[in-house]
Amino acid sequence: MLKTITYNDEPKEYCGLFGVYGYKHASWLTYLGLYAQQHRGQEACGIVTNDKGILTIHKEMGLVSDVFNEQGLSKLKGDMAVGHVRYSTTGSSVLKNAQPLLIDYAKGSVCIAHNGNLVNSLELRQYLENTGSIFQTTTDSEIIIHLMARAKTRDLQESLIYALRRIKGAYSLVMMDNYNLIGVRDALGFRPLCLGKIGKAWCLASETCAFDLVGARLIREIEPGEIVFINKNGVRSVRPKEFDFRNRHAFCTFEHVYFSRPDSVVFGENVHLVRRKLGSQLAKEHPVDADFVVPVPDSGFSAAMGYSAASGIPLEMGIIRNHYVGRTFIQPAQDSRELGVRVKFNLLKDVVRKKRIIIVDDSIVRGTTSKIRVRNLRRVGVKEVHLRISCPPHRFPCFYGIDFHRSSELIANRYESLDKIRQYLGVDSLGYLSLEGMLGCLRYPKNNYCTACWAGKYPVKAEKKHSKFSLELRCCGQGEMQNAKTHL
Amino acid sequence: MLKTITYNDEPKEYCGLFGVYGYKHASWLTYLGLYAQQHRGQEACGIVTNDKGILTIHKEMGLVSDVFNEQGLSKLKGDMAVGHVRYSTTGSSVLKNAQPLLIDYAKGSVCIAHNGNLVNSLELRQYLENTGSIFQTTTDSEIIIHLMARAKTRDLQESLIYALRRIKGAYSLVMMDNYNLIGVRDALGFRPLCLGKIGKAWCLASETCAFDLVGARLIREIEPGEIVFINKNGVRSVRPKEFDFRNRHAFCTFEHVYFSRPDSVVFGENVHLVRRKLGSQLAKEHPVDADFVVPVPDSGFSAAMGYSAASGIPLEMGIIRNHYVGRTFIQPAQDSRELGVRVKFNLLKDVVRKKRIIIVDDSIVRGTTSKIRVRNLRRVGVKEVHLRISCPPHRFPCFYGIDFHRSSELIANRYESLDKIRQYLGVDSLGYLSLEGMLGCLRYPKNNYCTACWAGKYPVKAEKKHSKFSLELRCCGQGEMQNAKTHL
Amino acid sequence: MLKTITYNDEPKEYCGLFGVYGYKHASWLTYLGLYAQQHRGQEACGIVTNDKGILTIHKEMGLVSDVFNEQGLSKLKGDMAVGHVRYSTTGSSVLKNAQPLLIDYAKGSVCIAHNGNLVNSLELRQYLENTGSIFQTTTDSEIIIHLMARAKTRDLQESLIYALRRIKGAYSLVMMDNYNLIGVRDALGFRPLCLGKIGKAWCLASETCAFDLVGARLIREIEPGEIVFINKNGVRSVRPKEFDFRNRHAFCTFEHVYFSRPDSVVFGENVHLVRRKLGSQLAKEHPVDADFVVPVPDSGFSAAMGYSAASGIPLEMGIIRNHYVGRTFIQPAQDSRELGVRVKFNLLKDVVRKKRIIIVDDSIVRGTTSKIRVRNLRRVGVKEVHLRISCPPHRFPCFYGIDFHRSSELIANRYESLDKIRQYLGVDSLGYLSLEGMLGCLRYPKNNYCTACWAGKYPVKAEKKHSKFSLELRCCGQGEMQNAKTHL
Amino acid sequence: MLKTITYNDEPKEYCGLFGVYGYKHASWLTYLGLYAQQHRGQEACGIVTNDKGILTIHKEMGLVSDVFNEQGLSKLKGDMAVGHVRYSTTGSSVLKNAQPLLIDYAKGSVCIAHNGNLVNSLELRQYLENTGSIFQTTTDSEIIIHLMARAKTRDLQESLIYALRRIKGAYSLVMMDNYNLIGVRDALGFRPLCLGKIGKAWCLASETCAFDLVGARLIREIEPGEIVFINKNGVRSVRPKEFDFRNRHAFCTFEHVYFSRPDSVVFGENVHLVRRKLGSQLAKEHPVDADFVVPVPDSGFSAAMGYSAASGIPLEMGIIRNHYVGRTFIQPAQDSRELGVRVKFNLLKDVVRKKRIIIVDDSIVRGTTSKIRVRNLRRVGVKEVHLRISCPPHRFPCFYGIDFHRSSELIANRYESLDKIRQYLGVDSLGYLSLEGMLGCLRYPKNNYCTACWAGKYPVKAEKKHSKFSLELRCCGQGEMQNAKTHL
Repeated sequence: MLKTITYNDEPKEYCGLFGVYGYKHASWLTYLGLYAQQHRGQEACGIVTNDKGILTIHKEMGLVSDVFNEQGLSKLKGDMAVGHVRYSTTGSSVLKNAQPLLIDYAKGSVCIAHNGNLVNSLELRQYLENTGSIFQTTTDSEIIIHLMARAKTRDLQESLIYALRRIKGAYSLVMMDNYNLIGVRDALGFRPLCLGKIGKAWCLASETCAFDLVGARLIREIEPGEIVFINKNGVRSVRPKEFDFRNRHAFCTFEHVYFSRPDSVVFGENVHLVRRKLGSQLAKEHPVDADFVVPVPDSGFSAAMGYSAASGIPLEMGIIRNHYVGRTFIQPAQDSRELGVRVKFNLLKDVVRKKRIIIVDDSIVRGTTSKIRVRNLRRVGVKEVHLRISCPPHRFPCFYGIDFHRSSELIANRYESLDKIRQYLGVDSLGYLSLEGMLGCLRYPKNNYCTACWAGKYPVKAEKKHSKFSLELRCCGQGEMQNAKTHL
Repeated sequence: MLKTITYNDEPKEYCGLFGVYGYKHASWLTYLGLYAQQHRGQEACGIVTNDKGILTIHKEMGLVSDVFNEQGLSKLKGDMAVGHVRYSTTGSSVLKNAQPLLIDYAKGSVCIAHNGNLVNSLELRQYLENTGSIFQTTTDSEIIIHLMARAKTRDLQESLIYALRRIKGAYSLVMMDNYNLIGVRDALGFRPLCLGKIGKAWCLASETCAFDLVGARLIREIEPGEIVFINKNGVRSVRPKEFDFRNRHAFCTFEHVYFSRPDSVVFGENVHLVRRKLGSQLAKEHPVDADFVVPVPDSGFSAAMGYSAASGIPLEMGIIRNHYVGRTFIQPAQDSRELGVRVKFNLLKDVVRKKRIIIVDDSIVRGTTSKIRVRNLRRVGVKEVHLRISCPPHRFPCFYGIDFHRSSELIANRYESLDKIRQYLGVDSLGYLSLEGMLGCLRYPKNNYCTACWAGKYPVKAEKKHSKFSLELRCCGQGEMQNAKTHL
Repeated sequence: MLKTITYNDEPKEYCGLFGVYGYKHASWLTYLGLYAQQHRGQEACGIVTNDKGILTIHKEMGLVSDVFNEQGLSKLKGDMAVGHVRYSTTGSSVLKNAQPLLIDYAKGSVCIAHNGNLVNSLELRQYLENTGSIFQTTTDSEIIIHLMARAKTRDLQESLIYALRRIKGAYSLVMMDNYNLIGVRDALGFRPLCLGKIGKAWCLASETCAFDLVGARLIREIEPGEIVFINKNGVRSVRPKEFDFRNRHAFCTFEHVYFSRPDSVVFGENVHLVRRKLGSQLAKEHPVDADFVVPVPDSGFSAAMGYSAASGIPLEMGIIRNHYVGRTFIQPAQDSRELGVRVKFNLLKDVVRKKRIIIVDDSIVRGTTSKIRVRNLRRVGVKEVHLRISCPPHRFPCFYGIDFHRSSELIANRYESLDKIRQYLGVDSLGYLSLEGMLGCLRYPKNNYCTACWAGKYPVKAEKKHSKFSLELRCCGQGEMQNAKTHL
Repeated sequence: MLKTITYNDEPKEYCGLFGVYGYKHASWLTYLGLYAQQHRGQEACGIVTNDKGILTIHKEMGLVSDVFNEQGLSKLKGDMAVGHVRYSTTGSSVLKNAQPLLIDYAKGSVCIAHNGNLVNSLELRQYLENTGSIFQTTTDSEIIIHLMARAKTRDLQESLIYALRRIKGAYSLVMMDNYNLIGVRDALGFRPLCLGKIGKAWCLASETCAFDLVGARLIREIEPGEIVFINKNGVRSVRPKEFDFRNRHAFCTFEHVYFSRPDSVVFGENVHLVRRKLGSQLAKEHPVDADFVVPVPDSGFSAAMGYSAASGIPLEMGIIRNHYVGRTFIQPAQDSRELGVRVKFNLLKDVVRKKRIIIVDDSIVRGTTSKIRVRNLRRVGVKEVHLRISCPPHRFPCFYGIDFHRSSELIANRYESLDKIRQYLGVDSLGYLSLEGMLGCLRYPKNNYCTACWAGKYPVKAEKKHSKFSLELRCCGQGEMQNAKTHL
């Protein structure tokens, strides 16, 4: 018996955003912008265009290159567009939750694309349902639109601020109504959002690598707590006082450590250069004598370079990544997950045999992959394995948009001490970058970064028992194959 | 250059419904029930099942046999289910409007499948939007659920009656919440809905041919104005006084004339036998001497048999229908629609050549197909063509769920007299069944039938400028490829 | 557990052919020609076009309307084309065997589409393999091309006659090389093939209903033993003496009884009119008193009309066919095939209840469907069921292209007497048309018709142990999912 | 107007091979073996299994992970299998040419998978056609089977050697008949082929990375000129004397430079380590002062590491590769190919700005991509760009299985001198590795390597006017959408 397994050993983020105003082929530019940000979500994607006030949407499960073709893009007419790529865990990964969400309400049409996670969505949804709202998705985005619809005004800005005052948590939003492209970033600035310009057209993107591909230049980041309205009159910035926490932010450090592309500028810094610094600092904190520094490709490359440069130990390729690996894999029903690791990574036996190596990785979540890799290295005759991680141990859940595994599955919680983790992984030595060390490599003072997943200090208090599935667990919906459970 | 054309010369109805309570393989039984009612809607279909209170949906564009397979049905677990087949014109035929609609609101989960058309949907939608509701589809069904959500009670029955009091028009509904299967028929009973039993399980269907296929027996029709709740306590019937118009109904005569399958029992009578009677009456009203009575297959068969029997003129096959014809067809870009007629129907040249024939058809809407057919008959050498239609001329739009073409396209409106129509069609004589004659063939007194499309007398007043597209024209939505237009 | 069943209770034929020379949109005309002949094969179809000597092919599993779209037809350029629709039993229904077959050999390119069945294919294939040929399909067509390739001449006509001299059995062929469209009919004329003209273009088709749809007029049938070459010089007919059996033919009577469309002219007669005559003759041979004559739709209609007219007993609809039924159906794993019958046919209970009815069907092969139908009629309260079949009992296999079931499954072989069959089917009386009676209804003297399946007299001797699967059982191939078994 | 472009700026090879004997889930192991070798061909793949002598095939256009699923693999039963991944240029990339090819002939069933290219295929095909063979594909493989069928013996080994004596060129073959798995490598050993063992089962693969994934250990390479028969009696090696050129081989150097995965062992050496040596030698031949060594990812990494180590200039990431890029891309119809380069690669602006960098790439074929990349580097402010290529300039076509572009398109042929190339590319300096330098880094004496593409010395003489399309240009075939042209 064969079975199909899905890779899910990596932390996941929800979304990548793109928006454009005033570009002739807006849907095509958005296609490019999503293409560049595919790493931020591979399960679904969608584009809404605006052709003289008429909004048209196309969204599907799948990669950008599979969902959109010439014909599809040609039908999405207009010079304004909003696009979204989405990741979601298998259970709730359904078309109904794909974004953007396109809605009709008393004030016209509006679409919304969201990166981040609200922490009071359950409470808001209960309030909304109890006062007569009905829900067709389990996304936070639908809550935001419901709130906008409740605002007793026909003014877009007032409606939006009415909603933003009521939502809590992490959100970068790209929205569009009949006339405006809108960018929003929450007051603490958890998730990135940037403003760019291409010719006379304006664009918004989660990461600057999207600007590089579409040929736009980065104007600036949208400020935490800022709302920008882009329309025929240009860009207008609004920053309600209550959203201005100038001295305290919560930039997600994991964007630097893992998520963002190394060629992006995030929170004011190039990601690759930050990672190099993390690697150098790691070498300082956890030196060890060895023959080679071996990166775990591709995300460990930058830090490994930093480690190699700081330590003087040469960089070497000991692990190869198979880039043709899809999201699923077929294996015998009884097999362990060892094969899944082997499919993705192979070892350069002739390189590592009889050598002392330092493996530099960007993070360990559950540890299963690392453990299997170390065992394989031992089998091919490596002499010593020293594991170095370019961030601190993850111990706490993220409520702001990253899907680590359950706390009890995190390796740093399963073992009482570093040495126990080391024993579990089977390495000769193990070193995590310190929290102070990590923050010291970053541009802004440390109170500007969220350290919830490492230190358990949550910048915005979450609802009790909030979980990624909190909405799923009590909601119903509509989609390709969807579950709805009563809330009793 | 080739182009793909879509057949659309026939009147269309929106939907067929099926529901089941207490049957182990509820999704499979519903699949059967929809299969039998495929003629009521070929563009989309969907099933919602209920497994111990958890509702799961699968719906797609396409025929029942294409949308559902073993695997899909197996995933739809539970012993309660609601199914829907849908027709819609090309413009608005999109997944977002496919049914059933599955919603989550304060009172739990609820799904709804609707056959018919509300006449105050625009007004209701404006009211709902103006008081804070947002819309993701352009269906009447979403309006009904919004109204239920607004009822200030947690009681299902009260919520439902609250909504039914506010909606006007034609509706047969099959609904399901976490615990109940619900059947509803509007007070005038425009559209059919029947209750059946299979073993200990109960089922609901638009037409009894669904019961024949699933092996259920017809218990009775749901009464106009009646609501039935089916749950672990059995069937409970509710009929609010205000919905009881015992002396006035509006059964849709077109169900008898054209839509329903000849093997169904509709409004208390077998459809084929009604059509035979219409044919006999037609022979009495419009006798003519001829060699053969030739039915237009398949829907004209029953009436032609009646005409032949009453007139003593033998029945003969002169026209053959190609049953492999799909919904679309490829033809040269410049071609007229003549080919489309030829693809669907061929003539038996050796049969009709040099003969005087009476063609019996169930209706003429635009007349284009009839005209082409007559021309082709002349070409193969028919001597005389006498056309007999088993219903009166259509002159007025239907606001209750049937999509005739625009009034100005109806042949009976384009020509001032019967003789002009006859000339246009090129027939030697033309006879429509009289309204009185038609009603005289039906079981109930004539005030029980809707004659809006023939006589222009509308049993329920429609909103001004109401049209099939009224919601589409000012609404936005979400779907596979969807348009949203501002209402300004 | 659910399972998907495939309907297979009906006799099947292999193919329908179409060819055109000198028509601008040749691929589109061929698409039409296949569309009209879809009843001759629903499992695969293909078109080869010829654009100034370059042959291009597209073929797939599926119906004509599914396989070809605007884009696909547009790519098939040229003013010559050959098309094919194919039926095949499940086992060997694979793309590799789809036709036309397009081949390159020393004399250029050639494609072939074949209707019928060779009876010496095993022997020929063994000879060819033993002398160095390799095979990629299990079709007879590949054998024909191998033989043409062996002819020691570059002349097309000589090569073709070389091959035809060696093959035995039933074959109507439409072929095309770089310059010619070719039509071939075997010397006994088992299968039909007609020549038509549309403007200045020529076409070939199995049935004339294809000419009606494309707008061509029937010029004549291709004669048994005739080869026609159609090229820039017009139509040239060749009829080698050895292929001229002017006084003996083997027209397939089952084309008249069952296969061909009622609107086609086959072997010189309109099919519907032949069937009417069969029905009249049946009434004479097997009269019975009853209330109604009830046809089994759609194929029993013509004969039922004849029976009704000859007997004076009125025709009535008692059985309805569901035309939305696809080729497969989902049912519970343990279920019998009763549901399959119910899906396809429903009874008009109110019509047949308490009546004595005569059911007229075109044939009984295994009898299962008939038996179930009779049982259902009894259940709804029919008083008497008299079954009349418009052909003699099938007792012998067909080696010329029709797939009856195995001899041992044929109802006429399973029961020793007519009365035993009657008992098995559960009818009150049973009557088959006599062989003499059937042949007496046909245009030509009886030595012109093949009576193998009824009388066991085979016009061309078959190889020993020949079966439909003979090639499959010892051959290998290439395709979507293909089996190859050694011949040891 | 949008258009879809296909990336085709890279040299391509035709195939990767895998075979297994005696493994329970042979199809699944083959799936793994193809997965690991996906880089050797991304356009089509196929597997043939052998279940007790019955061969079954499944092949399709697409990646291994798209073509095969649980269900598909489960149907491919048996403990023997042969698999193939294929690249082909767009024109001839059709299902009919997908491999393995499964054939039936007088000696039973046989399937063949081929890596390499024959140089006398046209001549052989003409001979075969002129003596009566017909062709359904344009592959060399079909020629080999035709030749085997012509051998006047029933013995497999003799038939095979008969064919091998007649074919010329490069071929590694994995074949299977009803009883044997067979591996063949041509006498000069152009393409790799290895023998591995997993438990008691044997396997064959083009590259050893396939063995690593399936968990097999490398036993040895198949020798040039060797044939191995693997069956129930174990492995039997045959090496006809005439195929033993012990002192002269023609190992393809481009396998080392570019094609093979860095973790594979090819021609006795680990590919990554060879590339490091090439990089070191390159640093010695073409030193230059700079701030960083920047690899072109991913294939330039190994050589860049060698260059960095040998020169002491630090390695840095200046170019990022987007691994989500598919095979095609949508862009405005009028756009140049600049966007295509940007989609695949982005620059790390903050890293390279104002720096002197050495770019190390594995090869330049047409030079277009390099030129655009350099221009983009200038735009973001790089100070100096020094380009180093880890192989000599390509000047001559490969007739043995690699698809460089036409000679006239090769940059080394378009410009008369190195300096002209340098000017065209816009770099400050340009250095190619010398032929002597390259060969000096390899394990065997230089007469063991093919240098045709660099030096124009062809180890096996090709047919006159041989081209990759030579067969296509005069052949016809059968496939999804296939052209056939006459040879006149």
